[in-house]
Amino acid sequence: MSRSKASKRGSARKNTPAAKAPQKKTARARKPREASSAETIAKKQREISVSEFFAKNRHLLGCDNPSKALLTTVKELVDNSLDAADEANIPADVEVRIDELAEDRFLVRCTDNGPGIVARNVPSVFGKLLYGSKFHRLKMSRGQQGIGVSAAGMYGLLTTGKPVKVVSRTSPKKSAQRFEIAIDTQKNQPTVKSQEDTEWDSSHGTQVEIELEASYRKGQHSVDNYIRQISLANPHAQLTYLPPDRSSDADIQVFERVTNELPPETAEIKPHPYGVELGLMMQWLRESTHRNLQGFMSNEFSRVSSRLAGEICDTAGLPRTKKPKAIDQPAAEKLHKAIQKTKIMSPPTDCIAPIGEELLGQAMQSIHPSEFSTAVTRRPAVYRGNPFLVEVSLAFGCDDISAEDSAVMYRYANRVPLQYQQGACAVTKATSSTDWKKYGLQQPRGGMPTGSMVIMVHIASVWVPFTSESKEAIAHYPEIIKEIRLGLQDCGRRLGIHLRRRKREADEAKKRSYIQKYIPQVAVALQEILGFEDKKRDETVEVLTGVLERSRKL
Amino acid sequence: MSRSKASKRGSARKNTPAAKAPQKKTARARKPREASSAETIAKKQREISVSEFFAKNRHLLGCDNPSKALLTTVKELVDNSLDAADEANIPADVEVRIDELAEDRFLVRCTDNGPGIVARNVPSVFGKLLYGSKFHRLKMSRGQQGIGVSAAGMYGLLTTGKPVKVVSRTSPKKSAQRFEIAIDTQKNQPTVKSQEDTEWDSSHGTQVEIELEASYRKGQHSVDNYIRQISLANPHAQLTYLPPDRSSDADIQVFERVTNELPPETAEIKPHPYGVELGLMMQWLRESTHRNLQGFMSNEFSRVSSRLAGEICDTAGLPRTKKPKAIDQPAAEKLHKAIQKTKIMSPPTDCIAPIGEELLGQAMQSIHPSEFSTAVTRRPAVYRGNPFLVEVSLAFGCDDISAEDSAVMYRYANRVPLQYQQGACAVTKATSSTDWKKYGLQQPRGGMPTGSMVIMVHIASVWVPFTSESKEAIAHYPEIIKEIRLGLQDCGRRLGIHLRRRKREADEAKKRSYIQKYIPQVAVALQEILGFEDKKRDETVEVLTGVLERSRKL
Repeated sequence: MSRSKASKRGSARKNTPAAKAPQKKTARARKPREASSAETIAKKQREISVSEFFAKNRHLLGCDNPSKALLTTVKELVDNSLDAADEANIPADVEVRIDELAEDRFLVRCTDNGPGIVARNVPSVFGKLLYGSKFHRLKMSRGQQGIGVSAAGMYGLLTTGKPVKVVSRTSPKKSAQRFEIAIDTQKNQPTVKSQEDTEWDSSHGTQVEIELEASYRKGQHSVDNYIRQISLANPHAQLTYLPPDRSSDADIQVFERVTNELPPETAEIKPHPYGVELGLMMQWLRESTHRNLQGFMSNEFSRVSSRLAGEICDTAGLPRTKKPKAIDQPAAEKLHKAIQKTKIMSPPTDCIAPIGEELLGQAMQSIHPSEFSTAVTRRPAVYRGNPFLVEVSLAFGCDDISAEDSAVMYRYANRVPLQYQQGACAVTKATSSTDWKKYGLQQPRGGMPTGSMVIMVHIASVWVPFTSESKEAIAHYPEIIKEIRLGLQDCGRRLGIHLRRRKREADEAKKRSYIQKYIPQVAVALQEILGFEDKKRDETVEVLTGVLERSRKL
Repeated sequence: MSRSKASKRGSARKNTPAAKAPQKKTARARKPREASSAETIAKKQREISVSEFFAKNRHLLGCDNPSKALLTTVKELVDNSLDAADEANIPADVEVRIDELAEDRFLVRCTDNGPGIVARNVPSVFGKLLYGSKFHRLKMSRGQQGIGVSAAGMYGLLTTGKPVKVVSRTSPKKSAQRFEIAIDTQKNQPTVKSQEDTEWDSSHGTQVEIELEASYRKGQHSVDNYIRQISLANPHAQLTYLPPDRSSDADIQVFERVTNELPPETAEIKPHPYGVELGLMMQWLRESTHRNLQGFMSNEFSRVSSRLAGEICDTAGLPRTKKPKAIDQPAAEKLHKAIQKTKIMSPPTDCIAPIGEELLGQAMQSIHPSEFSTAVTRRPAVYRGNPFLVEVSLAFGCDDISAEDSAVMYRYANRVPLQYQQGACAVTKATSSTDWKKYGLQQPRGGMPTGSMVIMVHIASVWVPFTSESKEAIAHYPEIIKEIRLGLQDCGRRLGIHLRRRKREADEAKKRSYIQKYIPQVAVALQEILGFEDKKRDETVEVLTGVLERSRKL
């Protein structure tokens, strides 16, 4: 193609005849292989199993490199163990053991004291993507998608050919069962390689073993670090970690439980009407077994009383007694608009358990001892009908962070530390779009604030919107960014007060030492002018010093 | 919980007795509701349809806010239209029309002159996620997942309750058919609301209409901008765009085709043995219909001749005549190791069609006229067995970009512009980890280079690894980052030469004007000392000026 023609593409030519009949013009340009092509393509069109999809896109699951694969596997196993124990109201006791089998081959074993998994469901839980108990509900938990652990097992199978090994026991009265499970990626179905009764010294719990291609590293994104961060956000759990490079029992790390109090049990909630889209509501109406619209509205949604349901029907101009199934698209649209016009209470918030300001502050001090720290737990807010809550903790003047560095960031979602994709996270966006100069910090344009500082943000929700299946970063919902920013500003203001006070103290100390230095000279001058005795002069020095002391305004 | 206890969690206590029997200790702490809990959870465990999953996680599909939803819908429709036309060898002619139906309600219509879609497949193509012709192959195309267009349709349905409308015609001999298709999200199956013959003035092609909740904006992430960027990367296609705010035909934008030459047809390839994991290879062995291992190896992989296949078998210590189905895990592991030890040619590269240095440079000049621009098309490389190729174009000294700003970045994957998630993209990572100071530019630590500069990166591959289903950023595969960096360095070196020359020219010009200024004085001085005539003096000025001219070393 010619150089001159190409450069015209920058500016669109307006209103040419071609704009009106684009199809015809080019049909002439080259005789297309029409029907045959549509047929050729048609023969190739077929269904893709969700396992095939994620096997090919394994980076979506957090397995794009060997060290990340190891971390992701540990993370998914520990998340599941903690969720299971919490849900069964058992103080969690989780042991993670990693063995290096060869240079690039590891065995991860995670053992918990949770309620166990009933035998009939074990194959699907570990050998089928998109299967689980947490997706079809609105309840705060670590896992939510039904992907994590089976994806970790699939990665192990893909890279080593070895199935996942599971031991599970649901009661001391029943024997433990041992499974070997491989996922059939083409069908997204589990293949049970073996299943048998086995001896196990625990009365209930689950043990999972995954062999995988991986590599073990120390440092920022290490498993060691991760386990430590989990323990900080889960003080009610006991974690035992056997790292791959252990040479004796002395290398076993135990993070003891520091409280016997479990986090408050969180309730499952119904969706809030403000967050339900028209199309979804139409689907629910079609499937509804309620006899009338008023009953449908008051039973299927959170915060809609029967009275309020009637009011919404009236606003929509629809009879309260109309059968839900009989509501067509235009009627549903009226109903949807009526909902937005009606004042409805925010969703209940007992469905979210914050870590709490006290514990956040303690956690912060234990990782990064600092001259100043503060924490804020915000009130719950709502995005797309889902309640969520933001907690922010901030430490300033940390010994281990240079004043020239960018602030160090820790991100948590439903008590799970987020390790990767910081740049893609709503937390980062909120932090870099906060004006930190107001609080006395330096900040490059559009960047993170600079200083010897740690920022920790926790988001708790019945449904955390992650930017990918690997759950590494939180999506940019405006309501979430706003809440994080408000939390950061709360902490920032307190930091600002601290920094200003520190500056004032420094200024005053400087002034004071200056005055202190000259008090004797002043006294000597007075002595000369007024003819004091030496004693009187010393008294004057004392009085002036006393005045100076009292005048400290701190 | 007590403050003092919590702070101990920062450091693990080593080798406590609890490390050895974690389960037992806590079983005592609180009597768990064991079996009943496992049963309770079991009752809730069930399958999640992939449509339900993406409906809840719609931000994964690029629909987390109304203006992004509009752009994503246009993008998916145009991608499909261009792919279809390219594949059928038809010079593409695509018309995008957007109508504003209400403040937050839009109708997007995309019409192409492609080969059309055979009627029996239309419902699945538009009403089922993970269905398509592009997933189960290794071939460069815009779409690859079988998610995009059905997801856009699902978003429309969810937000407006309106089904997708499709008109398709595969041949002038057949009549066009019109469909209304809604996706059943609980089953991930299409529901055909209507299907009928219809009049259509095109002899072949597809027209899709999606009504959705959206908002229309101008600016960086606008549809207007996007269409322009597509046209730049697809000079063989004609694009017509009818924006929602058009008031007359004069507002219709036509981006004319500038070449009748289609991009070279790209071949479908077989997987390269280096990129195939053990587990996947075991699956292929099990499903293989080849009679012996040698045949399996030479037929199923790219770049493996019969001779080389035999060699691999020998290295693995496996008989060449062994039945593929009979190969167990340990034997497969030997085979896998033997492959890694064998020298195998890189995959063929006719499967990738670069845009080309010339066109890239032109595209760049047409968007950002600049004092300097350059482009590099790298040789193909391989990640996980998939060939890919990187192209980089760079423009410096652009009128519309301030020298204090960060460089402006354009990212393309398989000729599709990427709009969001720049922070999460391998391109950004590669750019910020390149040392631009070497080339005479400023660069904050770990950031983008500063300057009046545009950087454009195109990645072409038979399988582009995106960080999410919405295909907004490229995953951080080390091989990809390396190639991008090498491309950036190529361009950077050329820019460095330009900048050094510019500096030398400026220095020399300064020196020259300085000397030029003093030549008459020198001549006068010589005249005085040597007693010249005025004529001789003027001659001297001329001679000296001549010497100065000739001594310019540029």
